[in-house]
Amino acid sequence: MRISELSKRSGVPVATLKFYIREGMLPRGEAVSATNAEYGEDHLARVRLIAALSDVRGLPLSRVREILALIDEPASDPVDTLGRAVGALPPYVEEADDYPRAREAIERAGLTYEPRFAAVPQLESAIRAIEDAGLRWDPAVLRRYADAMREVAREEVAPIGDMTVTDAVVYAVLGTALYEPVMLALRRLAHHHLLVSGKVPPPEA
Amino acid sequence: MRISELSKRSGVPVATLKFYIREGMLPRGEAVSATNAEYGEDHLARVRLIAALSDVRGLPLSRVREILALIDEPASDPVDTLGRAVGALPPYVEEADDYPRAREAIERAGLTYEPRFAAVPQLESAIRAIEDAGLRWDPAVLRRYADAMREVAREEVAPIGDMTVTDAVVYAVLGTALYEPVMLALRRLAHHHLLVSGKVPPPEA
Repeated sequence: MRISELSKRSGVPVATLKFYIREGMLPRGEAVSATNAEYGEDHLARVRLIAALSDVRGLPLSRVREILALIDEPASDPVDTLGRAVGALPPYVEEADDYPRAREAIERAGLTYEPRFAAVPQLESAIRAIEDAGLRWDPAVLRRYADAMREVAREEVAPIGDMTVTDAVVYAVLGTALYEPVMLALRRLAHHHLLVSGKVPPPEA
Repeated sequence: MRISELSKRSGVPVATLKFYIREGMLPRGEAVSATNAEYGEDHLARVRLIAALSDVRGLPLSRVREILALIDEPASDPVDTLGRAVGALPPYVEEADDYPRAREAIERAGLTYEPRFAAVPQLESAIRAIEDAGLRWDPAVLRRYADAMREVAREEVAPIGDMTVTDAVVYAVLGTALYEPVMLALRRLAHHHLLVSGKVPPPEA
């Protein structure tokens, strides 16, 4: 397809596509004449990935580049590659040598504590925010979320074993970036439904 | 306590506390002399709420004000009050008259479709992002998340029946704002754990 068609199918303006090409984020199309190049389905998938990360989830271009680099040249360990790719997604929180709150919670939940993995400082920062707000960080609450997320994660991760590392990185990054908002909206909708439907008594008027 | 102690206990600088007071977000303390005022536990709770919303979750002050107004003067319907308060939290997405993708998903999940409730446009926008990325929005995936969130929500909403509307608004807003990051970090940690522990095969190297 020509660049105009690539723009139409991806919803990304031609000027932006040219910017991605200049920045080395999108490979050049195959030249068919002095002024025209031909783009394929791989280009479309790449543009959609960049757009989902930068426009929808608001990632800085430096983080998008990090993810693209891992797709183009995965690290030697596949799990490490996935961890680094997902770690390029927000939220971006302060790093430290140790994360005592997260460590305790992760061990209690029977998960793996690996401080290099970005979700560890993210959990530390989330627990600290709860404490700072004067709320109690309760092991029963941890169990509630950890059990639900383990259940969800098992199904999500299952298809990865049949993928190449490159496909797995795209799957993990898009799955994380695009399904998080779905899950959060559904949680709010479930609260709302339980109260509106009278399945749970509302607060006293 | 004096304002210096309020600052110490909340971790919010005195200058910021004075700003909150000038802006009418934090009630003045009780004057004990021409230059000193006394603050109580209610002030501390209010400061922690404002800080959690504006500093931790990055809400614009106009949205924090909306939530404080609902706490100080709840609407006549308690469930409506809660819906509006939670609706002041991010993400902020485009509004429309109808949300066909969200409507179908909500009906399929057995939840309540009420387009005024902010999580409805949030879900619409999340599903549209999945489609735009060229991924299939799959009813089986919807069920996975809806079931998990319904389970989580049931326990979360249960205590609300014994609360005043004011307490319920604080509970719902802080519970939504502060536990969302916990849940998302645990989901990423569960993925990571399943792959690192070999419970699920990693991608081909």
